[in-house]
Amino acid sequence: MRSLRVGAAQLGPITRDASRGEVIDRLVTLMRRGSDAGAQLIVFPELALTTFFPRWYLDDVPEELDSYYETEMPGPQTQRLFDEAKSLGVGFYLGYAELTPEGKRYNSSVLVERDGSIVGRYRKVHLPGHEEHEPDRPFQHLERRYFEEGPDGFGVWAAFDGVMGMALCNDRRWPETYRVMALQRVEMVLIGYNTPLHYAPDPSQNPLQSFHNRLVMQAGAYQNGTWVVGVAKGGLEEGVESLAQSMIIAPSGQIIAEAVTTDDELLVADCDLDWCKHYKETLFDFDRYRRPEMYELITQPKSEQ
Amino acid sequence: MRSLRVGAAQLGPITRDASRGEVIDRLVTLMRRGSDAGAQLIVFPELALTTFFPRWYLDDVPEELDSYYETEMPGPQTQRLFDEAKSLGVGFYLGYAELTPEGKRYNSSVLVERDGSIVGRYRKVHLPGHEEHEPDRPFQHLERRYFEEGPDGFGVWAAFDGVMGMALCNDRRWPETYRVMALQRVEMVLIGYNTPLHYAPDPSQNPLQSFHNRLVMQAGAYQNGTWVVGVAKGGLEEGVESLAQSMIIAPSGQIIAEAVTTDDELLVADCDLDWCKHYKETLFDFDRYRRPEMYELITQPKSEQ
Repeated sequence: MRSLRVGAAQLGPITRDASRGEVIDRLVTLMRRGSDAGAQLIVFPELALTTFFPRWYLDDVPEELDSYYETEMPGPQTQRLFDEAKSLGVGFYLGYAELTPEGKRYNSSVLVERDGSIVGRYRKVHLPGHEEHEPDRPFQHLERRYFEEGPDGFGVWAAFDGVMGMALCNDRRWPETYRVMALQRVEMVLIGYNTPLHYAPDPSQNPLQSFHNRLVMQAGAYQNGTWVVGVAKGGLEEGVESLAQSMIIAPSGQIIAEAVTTDDELLVADCDLDWCKHYKETLFDFDRYRRPEMYELITQPKSEQ
Repeated sequence: MRSLRVGAAQLGPITRDASRGEVIDRLVTLMRRGSDAGAQLIVFPELALTTFFPRWYLDDVPEELDSYYETEMPGPQTQRLFDEAKSLGVGFYLGYAELTPEGKRYNSSVLVERDGSIVGRYRKVHLPGHEEHEPDRPFQHLERRYFEEGPDGFGVWAAFDGVMGMALCNDRRWPETYRVMALQRVEMVLIGYNTPLHYAPDPSQNPLQSFHNRLVMQAGAYQNGTWVVGVAKGGLEEGVESLAQSMIIAPSGQIIAEAVTTDDELLVADCDLDWCKHYKETLFDFDRYRRPEMYELITQPKSEQ
């Protein structure tokens, strides 16, 4: 049994005027609590260092927009998180806004091992929301304006004595996300998210946010025989209510831990990475049972569909 | 609103010695009840004309094995079902074992319109179970011995004033099943199944059969903005207990009707096919949000994965 003790470190709201230092204080507090509880890996949310800024149209204040991105990881302010992790001997997953030296902007995450070294970086593949200012919305969801689509796809990394994968928020609703990683033998998928409860294009979906959140991550776990750790930034942030409900899901699809607050909260669970094989080597034995030649529409370019 | 009233016609056990005539009597009874209730489409289970014969190793009794297959559809015995449908003006989906003139064997289904004409035929893509006799099992699951893998993939058909798709049993556990149809704009996926509660390769999955059944069909519906109608042959058949739990699922993933018995039972629900667009044109707007270039592993031949 390869048991990994994981801490899902949910965050409550981060205000628009919160400094990086204040936020990192909260992350360090959660990291220490996780370490005290014996966790080897702490999973933080998507865009965990700032408020969820895509809710504002910021063309008039480009300097504010730029302030939300990290140009280095670790950088001057986030170094403290890496130092703390190394000192405690715990790894972490962290979502953040990335601005590259070439000027490209991505919604990204990093996976950091227990020695403080970066194991892998992920750039969000499925960007939801819209490109243009839509003033009729109660708030914006401008991820498609402020980020480029991740160009690297879904990788996996040998780390934490297992095979780890990363995704971000909207990715979790797409079965391809989990499947591409599972075809690389992923054993644990880490997913940070920010999910406003109000969905402007179809408010009839609002009361189903909690149901859908569980549904897609549980299905992704079961259908791929993998652990899934979903971690929210939740609660009422700058007037926008977001789903919390962070959870740790077994390869059976069963939820083994789920947040009960909409604030900073730590869930800890022991995850047996060997549990994956109960599914990967039976019902979902891909080599035996998949029919890839029947799936061709899935990879056809969009113009041909 | 394009409203289609659907009847999910669950079957209880069919004994090994039941004649086709006896079984078709039961199907006709359910069809008439559905028609009385105003249903326009009746959905029967997988292998709805016989007992679930893959539970036996039948090499010693090839004539019994052959007796379970249909060589024509409609044939001399099933013609009555087609006549009844035409007379009532209701369509149906029927799962059956198909033996072609070329001697090929498939686990198949047909979709029949309200005028008694066959709209489409589907041959099961994902065959579960095993190829060889495994005497240590309490019962066999020899689908991979008795059927060839369906060569045609997942089509859709313009029928019932909508876009209809078909799948069978194990197909419903694979997200690719729904996705390939959704890329062809499917609005309702019809799925018959036989699901023994005992899963020999990993009995720890036994108590989760009901959970998994709901999970995969609800996720398939939601992630593709489609109706899903799942219909069981359930109950204690020849000593083997199978899941019932037939259900009708909306494009939101919500279950709007679910069977409460493990016997012959009819569920009727009004399904608004226009509901699909609430998902297909917002969160799951494939043209806008999918990233097919990132999914390439999904269609790579198995030897290359």
